[in-house]
Amino acid sequence: MNTELANLFKQLDQDRVRLTAVVPPKDEAHQLADDLVNFLFPVHGQSFRPAKVQYAVLCNNLDHMLRPLLIDNRKVDVEKIVDAFFGALPKTYQALMDDAKAILEFDPAATCLEEVITTYPGFLAIATYRIAHILHQSGTPLLPRIFTEYIHGKTGIDIHPAAKIGQSFFIDHGTGVVIGATTIIGNNVKLYQGVTLGALQVEKSMAKIKRHPTIEDNCIIYANSTILGGQTVIGHDSIIGGNTWITESVPPNSIVQNQAQVRVRSKQ
Amino acid sequence: MNTELANLFKQLDQDRVRLTAVVPPKDEAHQLADDLVNFLFPVHGQSFRPAKVQYAVLCNNLDHMLRPLLIDNRKVDVEKIVDAFFGALPKTYQALMDDAKAILEFDPAATCLEEVITTYPGFLAIATYRIAHILHQSGTPLLPRIFTEYIHGKTGIDIHPAAKIGQSFFIDHGTGVVIGATTIIGNNVKLYQGVTLGALQVEKSMAKIKRHPTIEDNCIIYANSTILGGQTVIGHDSIIGGNTWITESVPPNSIVQNQAQVRVRSKQ
Amino acid sequence: MNTELANLFKQLDQDRVRLTAVVPPKDEAHQLADDLVNFLFPVHGQSFRPAKVQYAVLCNNLDHMLRPLLIDNRKVDVEKIVDAFFGALPKTYQALMDDAKAILEFDPAATCLEEVITTYPGFLAIATYRIAHILHQSGTPLLPRIFTEYIHGKTGIDIHPAAKIGQSFFIDHGTGVVIGATTIIGNNVKLYQGVTLGALQVEKSMAKIKRHPTIEDNCIIYANSTILGGQTVIGHDSIIGGNTWITESVPPNSIVQNQAQVRVRSKQ
Amino acid sequence: MNTELANLFKQLDQDRVRLTAVVPPKDEAHQLADDLVNFLFPVHGQSFRPAKVQYAVLCNNLDHMLRPLLIDNRKVDVEKIVDAFFGALPKTYQALMDDAKAILEFDPAATCLEEVITTYPGFLAIATYRIAHILHQSGTPLLPRIFTEYIHGKTGIDIHPAAKIGQSFFIDHGTGVVIGATTIIGNNVKLYQGVTLGALQVEKSMAKIKRHPTIEDNCIIYANSTILGGQTVIGHDSIIGGNTWITESVPPNSIVQNQAQVRVRSKQ
Amino acid sequence: MNTELANLFKQLDQDRVRLTAVVPPKDEAHQLADDLVNFLFPVHGQSFRPAKVQYAVLCNNLDHMLRPLLIDNRKVDVEKIVDAFFGALPKTYQALMDDAKAILEFDPAATCLEEVITTYPGFLAIATYRIAHILHQSGTPLLPRIFTEYIHGKTGIDIHPAAKIGQSFFIDHGTGVVIGATTIIGNNVKLYQGVTLGALQVEKSMAKIKRHPTIEDNCIIYANSTILGGQTVIGHDSIIGGNTWITESVPPNSIVQNQAQVRVRSKQ
Amino acid sequence: MNTELANLFKQLDQDRVRLTAVVPPKDEAHQLADDLVNFLFPVHGQSFRPAKVQYAVLCNNLDHMLRPLLIDNRKVDVEKIVDAFFGALPKTYQALMDDAKAILEFDPAATCLEEVITTYPGFLAIATYRIAHILHQSGTPLLPRIFTEYIHGKTGIDIHPAAKIGQSFFIDHGTGVVIGATTIIGNNVKLYQGVTLGALQVEKSMAKIKRHPTIEDNCIIYANSTILGGQTVIGHDSIIGGNTWITESVPPNSIVQNQAQVRVRSKQ
Repeated sequence: MNTELANLFKQLDQDRVRLTAVVPPKDEAHQLADDLVNFLFPVHGQSFRPAKVQYAVLCNNLDHMLRPLLIDNRKVDVEKIVDAFFGALPKTYQALMDDAKAILEFDPAATCLEEVITTYPGFLAIATYRIAHILHQSGTPLLPRIFTEYIHGKTGIDIHPAAKIGQSFFIDHGTGVVIGATTIIGNNVKLYQGVTLGALQVEKSMAKIKRHPTIEDNCIIYANSTILGGQTVIGHDSIIGGNTWITESVPPNSIVQNQAQVRVRSKQ
Repeated sequence: MNTELANLFKQLDQDRVRLTAVVPPKDEAHQLADDLVNFLFPVHGQSFRPAKVQYAVLCNNLDHMLRPLLIDNRKVDVEKIVDAFFGALPKTYQALMDDAKAILEFDPAATCLEEVITTYPGFLAIATYRIAHILHQSGTPLLPRIFTEYIHGKTGIDIHPAAKIGQSFFIDHGTGVVIGATTIIGNNVKLYQGVTLGALQVEKSMAKIKRHPTIEDNCIIYANSTILGGQTVIGHDSIIGGNTWITESVPPNSIVQNQAQVRVRSKQ
Repeated sequence: MNTELANLFKQLDQDRVRLTAVVPPKDEAHQLADDLVNFLFPVHGQSFRPAKVQYAVLCNNLDHMLRPLLIDNRKVDVEKIVDAFFGALPKTYQALMDDAKAILEFDPAATCLEEVITTYPGFLAIATYRIAHILHQSGTPLLPRIFTEYIHGKTGIDIHPAAKIGQSFFIDHGTGVVIGATTIIGNNVKLYQGVTLGALQVEKSMAKIKRHPTIEDNCIIYANSTILGGQTVIGHDSIIGGNTWITESVPPNSIVQNQAQVRVRSKQ
Repeated sequence: MNTELANLFKQLDQDRVRLTAVVPPKDEAHQLADDLVNFLFPVHGQSFRPAKVQYAVLCNNLDHMLRPLLIDNRKVDVEKIVDAFFGALPKTYQALMDDAKAILEFDPAATCLEEVITTYPGFLAIATYRIAHILHQSGTPLLPRIFTEYIHGKTGIDIHPAAKIGQSFFIDHGTGVVIGATTIIGNNVKLYQGVTLGALQVEKSMAKIKRHPTIEDNCIIYANSTILGGQTVIGHDSIIGGNTWITESVPPNSIVQNQAQVRVRSKQ
Repeated sequence: MNTELANLFKQLDQDRVRLTAVVPPKDEAHQLADDLVNFLFPVHGQSFRPAKVQYAVLCNNLDHMLRPLLIDNRKVDVEKIVDAFFGALPKTYQALMDDAKAILEFDPAATCLEEVITTYPGFLAIATYRIAHILHQSGTPLLPRIFTEYIHGKTGIDIHPAAKIGQSFFIDHGTGVVIGATTIIGNNVKLYQGVTLGALQVEKSMAKIKRHPTIEDNCIIYANSTILGGQTVIGHDSIIGGNTWITESVPPNSIVQNQAQVRVRSKQ
Repeated sequence: MNTELANLFKQLDQDRVRLTAVVPPKDEAHQLADDLVNFLFPVHGQSFRPAKVQYAVLCNNLDHMLRPLLIDNRKVDVEKIVDAFFGALPKTYQALMDDAKAILEFDPAATCLEEVITTYPGFLAIATYRIAHILHQSGTPLLPRIFTEYIHGKTGIDIHPAAKIGQSFFIDHGTGVVIGATTIIGNNVKLYQGVTLGALQVEKSMAKIKRHPTIEDNCIIYANSTILGGQTVIGHDSIIGGNTWITESVPPNSIVQNQAQVRVRSKQ
C-alpha cells in the first residue's frame, strides 16, 4: 500500500469520528421517517402495536435522533422539541386527511381513500413534508432534511421542509417536482410531475431572502413547468399549462399557456 | 398526554383495523412484484429454485395477496384470476423478450441482452407494467397499482396498469415518464425521459372516458415532451422533438419540433 | 400445467444458468456500490471498522464481482484492475471533496459540508459516477453500469460511467438529469433537475462516435433543458435558462433563454 | 402425488388453523422471554431505549402473547395479568440480584457481578424461571412453559415454572438439571449439573398431588444426583454428594455420600 | 504476517474449496430440519403457505441439499430418495401423533396436545429423529446426522438417525440422553434425562456390528442410567431406576435399582 | 406507574450505562466465536472471502471486542494480545486437526473427517476451548468465558478456558461434560457425555489453588462419571467406567468400575 492510500485511510478514519459526532445515524433516520408516516397512516403488514405504544417508542427514537444537536454547543431543549412535535401531530393528521380527500375527489383514477394513502407517491411526499416541517420550525434543520431527501429518493418529489404549504395540496405522479425552501403555497393547489418552484438566481449570499415563488389558492400547474424567483406570484385560481418557463408574476384567474406552437412537418 | 393526542390514537387504532381488511400487506406486495419479474428474468444471486417450484410459491403468494378483495363483498373468483394470470405468462415473456431485443438493436450504448435485462430501468418498468396489466384486466385494480407505483418509486417511470401498449416498446432513461390509464400505444414506439402522456383536463366525472392520448406505431418521442388529451392522436411513424407541448392530433409521418428557438445573448 | 407453461419453465431454467455465468450478482453489486461510497464518505451508523480493514474487504469484493468477466474468454487481469482502482481512489476522494465544497459555497440552502455529503442526491450521484468511471476506463463495462443505474434508481440522476466530467461539478435536486456516454463536461459546471445532455439521433451504428454534447467550463444549465448532439458545444461561462431545447452550439459567455414567452389570459 | 400425501396435506392445513388459534406465536414468545430478561439485565449491544419505553413495548407484547387464552372461552382478564406481572417485577429484580450476589460470593471462578450476569447459564435459567413463575401463578400455564423450555434449550436447565424456589439460589454449570413442577426449594440452596429433583412414579392421575421433593435451606447437591418423590425431604444444611440416588427423606445437617466405592483393578 | 500464518491461510483456502464440494451448506441444512418438522407440526407465526406449496419448496430444498452426494462419484438417484422420503411422510406423521398422544396420556404436567407439540424437547427430538431416520435408510448418512446433531444442540438429546425405535416413544426433559446407532427400542418405551444407551467398548473395527443395547416393549428407564453393550437386552415391561450402570441383560418384567444405598452422616 | 416501578426503571437505566462500559457486546462476541472457529474450519455456505481478508476483519473485530478492558484502568496492550493470538493460531489449527483425526480413527460411527468437523459437538467445543485458551493466557478473562459459555449453550459441554488440555482429545456426545478451570488433561484422553471434572469443595477462598483433577495420558472416562478434587490424579492408561464417583487418586493402568451392582427383582 503506497503513501497516498495510507494518507487517505488516515483521513477517512478521522472523517468517520467527526461525522458520528454531528450527524444522526442515516439508516435509523430513514427508519424514523417511515415510522412516523406509518404511525399516522398504518401499512398492513406492520406489527400489532397500538398507537400509545408506538408513541412511546417514537418519542424515544426522535429524542435519540436529535441528540447529535447537543454536541454543537447550541442550547437545544430536545425534550421540548419532541413534545412540541407530538403536540402538533393531531393537526397534521387532520391536514393530511384533507390532502387525501382532495386527491380522491379530484382524480378520476382514484377509487378509494385507501388507494390514495397506500399508493400515491404525491401523498407520501406531502405527508413526509408536513411531518418534517414541524421539526424544521423548531430549529433542527438536518433531521427534517434527511427525512425529505429520503422521500425525494423514493418518489422523485423534492419538497424543502422549510416551504410553507396550505391545505388540500395535491401532487400527481410527482417525479421531478422541486419546491424550494422559501416557497409559499396557498390552499387547494395542484401540481403535476416535473414542476419546479425554484430560485431565479442562486448565490450563497441569498440564504436569508425569499428566493422561491408564491402560488396562491386554487392554482393548477401542469407538467414540466418551471416557475422561478422570490418575487414571482401566481395569482389565485390560475391555470398554468405544461412546459412553461415563468419568471414573472401572473395575475389572479389567469390561464397561462406555452405560446410556442409546435411545428409539424411531413417526413420525406 | 392531552385529549387531542388521545383522540388521535383512538382514531389511528381504528384506521389500522380497517386498512388491514381491505389492503394487501404492502411489503409483501412489493416483494411479489420483484419475485414475478425475477421469475421471468432471473437475477444472479437468487436462490437455486427451479421454475416449477417458484411457480408453486408464486401462485400461492398471488392468491394470498388477492384475498382482501373478497372482503369487499364483490364476487371474485381468486383462483380463476391466478390461473388466468399464469396462463398469460408465456405470451408476456415473449412480449418482454421482444422489448429487450428492440432496445438492444436500437441503443448504441447497449452491449448485450443481459445488460438490457439487468440494468435498463425502462425494461424493468415495462416488465412490471406488462405483468400488472394482466392482473388489471381481471378486475383487481389495487394490487397492480401497488406494483406499478412500487416500480415508479424505483425507476421514476409511472405507467398505469390500465394503459394499452403494443409490441417492442422502449423507454430510455425514463425518469419522469408518465403514461396515463387510458393511453393507447402502438408497436415499435420509443419514449425518452420526462415524456408525459396525460390528461388535458382532469375531473372526477371523467373516470370512464378516454382522457389520455393515442400514440400510433413506430413513433419516437424525445425528452420532456408533454402530450395531453383523450382525442389527441400522434400518427404513425412520427418523430416528436423534446420539450414540446402537444394538445392536438398530429398526422402520420410528421416531424414535430418545438417552434420556439432559444435566444442567445452575450453576457456583458 | 399446460405445454406452454412447461416450455416457459424449461426456458427460464436455462436462462438462469446462463445469467449466472456472465452477470455479477445484482444485490451484491448494489451493496458494493454503497460500500465504496460509504468507504470514502462514512455514514454514521456503520460498523467500527477502520479504513485499512474495509480496504481489505472491498478489494476482495470488487475482485469477486469482476470474476464473471473471465468467463467471456476475454483476457482480463482482474487483480490489476482492482489495484488500479484503489490506486486512483485518493485522487477521486480529492475530486469529490472539491465537488462537495463547490456545492457548499454556491447553494444558499446548504449549511455545512456534512449536510451536503449526507443529504444531497446530486453529491451521491457524482460520487458514484466518479467511482464507476475509474472502473469503466479499465474495460469492465457492466459493473460500473450496474453501479450508476442503481444510483439512478435512488436519485433519478442517470450519468453514464463513460462520460467525462471536470472538477467542482454540481447537480442540484437532480431528478430527471441524464448525461450520456460521450458527454464532455468542463470544470465548475452546474446542472439543475431535468437537464438532458443527450443524443440528437440514436442508431445502433453510432456506437463508436460522439453522440452527446460538450459543456465547457463555468456553465450553468437550468431545469428541464434538453441539449442534444455530439457536435453541440456550450461555450464556457454560459448560462442556459430552463425548459430550452438546444441542438446547436452556443458561443462562450452566452445567456440562452427560452424565446417563447408564456401567454396569459384571464379565465371567464 | 398419491392419496395418502393428499390426505396428509389436508390434515396439516387444518392443524395449522387450529394451532394459530390456541398457541402464541413461538418465535415471538422466545423473543419476549429474551426481552424480559434483558430488560432487567441489559445486554451490551442492545438498542438505546430507556426503561420506561421498553416497559411500554413489553406491556403490549405480553398482552398480545396472552390473547390466544381468550379463545378458549376462559374468562381471563389479560390486562390484569399484565399489570400484576409488572407490579411484581421490582421484587423479582431484587431476588435476582440476591441470586447473582450469592454466586459471586461462593464461586471461586467468578470475578465480578457482570461476569455472573453475562455468562452464567445458571443465572439465566433462574432469571427466566422467576419471571415465568409470576406468570404461572396468574393462571396462564402455556406461555411460561414456552419461556422455560426455551431457556432449557439454551442452558440444559429445565425448571418448571410452577416450582417454588427460595432466595439466593445457585445452579452451577447446570446442564441436565431438572426441577419438577411441585418441587419446593428453600433459601441458599446450591445445585450442580445433572441434578434431578423429580417424581418417583409418574401417572396422569397424579396431576394434582405433590410429586417432587422438598429441599430445605442451605443444602448443597453435587453433580448427577437424582432425588425423587413428593414425600422426600432433604433436611436443611445437608450436603448431598454426587451420583447419589435418593428416594427417601434425609434429616437436617446430613452428609450424604454414594456408598458404592469404585473398584480399581490393574489392566493386564 | 509471518510464513507460518501465510501457510495456514493457503491451507484454509484449500480446505474451503474441498468442504464446499462434499458437505451440504450447514445453515441451510439446519433450516431444512426446522422446516420439515414445522411442516408436520406447524408453528404459529409461520407464513400462510398451504401444505402443497410447502411441499413443492421442501422437495426442491431436500433435492438441493443432497446434491453434494453426487460429487463423491457414488451413483445416487437423488430424485428417487426425495420421492421415497415424502412417500414415507404420512406414516411418520401418524407415528409422531402417537408419540405425542402417549406423552399427553402419561405425563401429569401435560395439559393438552398443543403443549406437548409446542414445548416438549423430547417430542422435537423424536420428530427430528423419525424424519432423519427415513433419509438415513436411503443411504445418505451425512444430512440426517447434521439434522440430529442440530437438534442435539437445541435439546441435549442425541439420537443417532440409524437407531431403530418403535411406537409411542417418550423422552422426558431429555438433556443428556444418548441413543447410539445400533440401538433397538420397542414400543411404549419411556426414557428420562441423562440416559445413555451406548457402546461398552468402542473401536473403529466395530463399525459394522451391533454395539448398542436393545430395549424391549413397555420399559421405563429413569434419569442418568447408563446401559451399554450390543448384547445387552432390557426385557419387556421392565423398570430401570435412576443412576444405574448396566452392562448385562435383564429379564422381562424386572425392577432394577441401584443397589448402592446412600450413606447419611450428621455434620459435626 | 407506582414508585417501586419508577425506582426500578431508574436503576435499570443506570445498570445499562455501567454494563456497556465494562462488558463487550454479547451478540458480537458470540458472532466472533463462530467466526474464529469457522475461519479455521470453514462452513459451506459462508461467503467467498479468502483467508487473508477474513484475517483482516477478525483482527479488527477481536481488537474491538477487547476494548472494554481498557476502561478498567488496567494497562493492557490490546494490539499485542491480538498479535499474540493470531501468532498462536497455526499451532492451534494443527492441534485441532490432530483432535479431529483422533476422533475419526477411534469412533466407529465417524465416516470421514468432514463429518467430524461439521457435526461432532465435541469437536466444536474443543475448537472453541483451544481458541479461548490462547486468549485466556494473555490475561483477558471475560471474552474467552463468553466464548466457552456460548458453546456450552450450543453443545452442553462446559470447558473452562483456563483448563490445560493435551493433544488428541476426544469428547463423544458430550452433553453435561464439565471441565473446571484448574483441570489438567494429558494426551489421547477420551471423555463421554455427563463426565464432571470438578471441585470437591468450593469456597471463594480457593480461587488461586488447584481445585480440579488431573487426568494423565491415554485415559478413557465413560458416561456420567464424576471425578472431583485438586489432588485427585487419574493415572495414565486408565479406564474409568460410567456413573462412578471418584474423589481420590487412581494408579496408572487401572480399570475402575462402579462396584454397586444393580438389583434386579421381578414385578409381581
